[in-house]
Amino acid sequence: MRDIHLVPVSYFPSENLEFPMISSLQTITPNQLFYVRNHFEYPPIDINTWNLSIEDSVDRSIKFTYSDLINMNKVTLSATLECAGNKRSLFERKAQGNQFMLGAISNAIWGGVRLKDVLEQAGVSLSGTEIVFEGLDYGQRNDMEEHVFFERSLPVAKAFHPDTILAYEMNGEPLSIKHGFPIRLIVPGWYAVASVKWLHRIRVVEQPFKGPFQSIDYVILKKTNDYKHALPLSPVLVNSTIASPTEEQEMAAGTNVIEGYAWAGEHSVTKVEISTDGGNLWSEANLLDPDVPYSWRRWSFSWNPQNSGPYTIMSKATNDHGDVQPLKAEWNVKGYQNNSIHAVNVHVITSNLVNSILN
Amino acid sequence: MRDIHLVPVSYFPSENLEFPMISSLQTITPNQLFYVRNHFEYPPIDINTWNLSIEDSVDRSIKFTYSDLINMNKVTLSATLECAGNKRSLFERKAQGNQFMLGAISNAIWGGVRLKDVLEQAGVSLSGTEIVFEGLDYGQRNDMEEHVFFERSLPVAKAFHPDTILAYEMNGEPLSIKHGFPIRLIVPGWYAVASVKWLHRIRVVEQPFKGPFQSIDYVILKKTNDYKHALPLSPVLVNSTIASPTEEQEMAAGTNVIEGYAWAGEHSVTKVEISTDGGNLWSEANLLDPDVPYSWRRWSFSWNPQNSGPYTIMSKATNDHGDVQPLKAEWNVKGYQNNSIHAVNVHVITSNLVNSILN
Repeated sequence: MRDIHLVPVSYFPSENLEFPMISSLQTITPNQLFYVRNHFEYPPIDINTWNLSIEDSVDRSIKFTYSDLINMNKVTLSATLECAGNKRSLFERKAQGNQFMLGAISNAIWGGVRLKDVLEQAGVSLSGTEIVFEGLDYGQRNDMEEHVFFERSLPVAKAFHPDTILAYEMNGEPLSIKHGFPIRLIVPGWYAVASVKWLHRIRVVEQPFKGPFQSIDYVILKKTNDYKHALPLSPVLVNSTIASPTEEQEMAAGTNVIEGYAWAGEHSVTKVEISTDGGNLWSEANLLDPDVPYSWRRWSFSWNPQNSGPYTIMSKATNDHGDVQPLKAEWNVKGYQNNSIHAVNVHVITSNLVNSILN
Repeated sequence: MRDIHLVPVSYFPSENLEFPMISSLQTITPNQLFYVRNHFEYPPIDINTWNLSIEDSVDRSIKFTYSDLINMNKVTLSATLECAGNKRSLFERKAQGNQFMLGAISNAIWGGVRLKDVLEQAGVSLSGTEIVFEGLDYGQRNDMEEHVFFERSLPVAKAFHPDTILAYEMNGEPLSIKHGFPIRLIVPGWYAVASVKWLHRIRVVEQPFKGPFQSIDYVILKKTNDYKHALPLSPVLVNSTIASPTEEQEMAAGTNVIEGYAWAGEHSVTKVEISTDGGNLWSEANLLDPDVPYSWRRWSFSWNPQNSGPYTIMSKATNDHGDVQPLKAEWNVKGYQNNSIHAVNVHVITSNLVNSILN
């Protein structure tokens, strides 16, 4: 009976939909609830003419068809993808761009081939420093006259990591158009902008790549237009989210369950702590999932407030490197990498007062 | 291809879904995008046993079946329904309850019978002062031990107004379960809490009705728990919303369209003014719809910024009574009736800067 579906953030010029972070927890996000983040319209795909072109630094190229790829050695891998703009709307000072709340993150099992296997099979000379990945999605940006394709680069080392894959399956189903059919690059532990959808071209370059999605967007700017000091995104930071209760929720006194997710990109989440008094006292939550590389872990915490009034609930994750979520992540112009301790204000209600009003 | 659907606000303990205020404007909200606001689970309805019981102040009662009602004189009426908590999340000081953004409002054509026709046909003695409407939805509140039904009252004058109807159709289709099948009371121009869904019982009372949804919720509290000075909701206040652009959106320099809705409850919207400089200068928007009683009017405004930078766009509606939206609506504990001038911060972008970075 419930109408559980994605949360629209924007439809124009491109469709952007969040995972509904208010539903009950699931480790694997069902495909129809996996968040969607686009820069342009969905590209038309003809699988009969589609191929993946791999070009080396001296412009030799080789092409793979869809069946070439699915006939290679298959790997599967669990990975949480998080948009770099997840929780942008939670910055106190507003930041430019889609106002993502808590749900620009989801977790799936990806099936495909190792990128390194494809690159090695292509036999192209990999003398370059970076590898550029081009999707078939393209269009006009607000800040450029000409149309551009969506392109992103990786350092050679990350591209050749055995866990970097070309995925054609998502949770056991063929990748859908909305998630990058026929092939999506999956770069585990990195913000999801690196995981290029509708991949059709891979090229080795000698110089650091400067495309608009590499050097204008998805950079950390401390001041407006200060591109001279722009920093690249880091790998995904340690983070956690309280999925229930939600902001300003009213709760009955007595036993309540606080629950949510924690993740740490290339690292492992080792601990999630909860405060119900605005950050004074902290207690450990129960981690409900095993430690699976690149994958979020559900957690829960039992809380038994007796007194009515406002409470601030907070969650704070720690990774195996000892990194802990900061109280306030550093603001940046484009609102990326918000891993502030998550705080939710709630109201606990007892029946005494109401009885006196109604009777 | 776009996945245009309702925006979930909460699923537990009850389902609450907003109209996606980011899609292109439509005067009549399609049924599947009409916002949903529940207090309890959806009640089970058996239309073969359902009836509407009308009880007078001396406990005489008469029952109407579904076919009794649909065989009476039918009226249709356009009416915008707005939740009293619409725009709650826009209060700077957070207020308790579901954090509705802009979309706890929708507009439909309702088909049904006049409530006064039913009351007169029932022939019950209407000596009371209020009429109480009970829905079949019930459950436990956080603040009460016993289960309660959803109940609301109207003054006799509003109940006998010829535009107050018992609706069994919504935009030409039978009312769906989510919207109150078989019968929803429609009280045009009042906040939608008055428009009781799954109606099954109407009773005349001599004393002002005090149910929890009349005297605990849906009252204006200036201070926490200060129920002694609680005020009832007013009829729907004059209000407007900018549907496009959205908060923190990036826009290209040149011609852009600003568009949205304005409404005024029992009054008419006579004017919508737009400011693109944070409230200094105001210009009139074009009203795109005729003035239909109880119904919102779409408006649009053409804007042609040349210079890059941040801009604050505002919309301000005026009604035929001369009431104008305030810059800041008065905060109240439960976050009702937010009709502040709507402000949206955007960023205008030119191509000069980007060219210098990329080239």
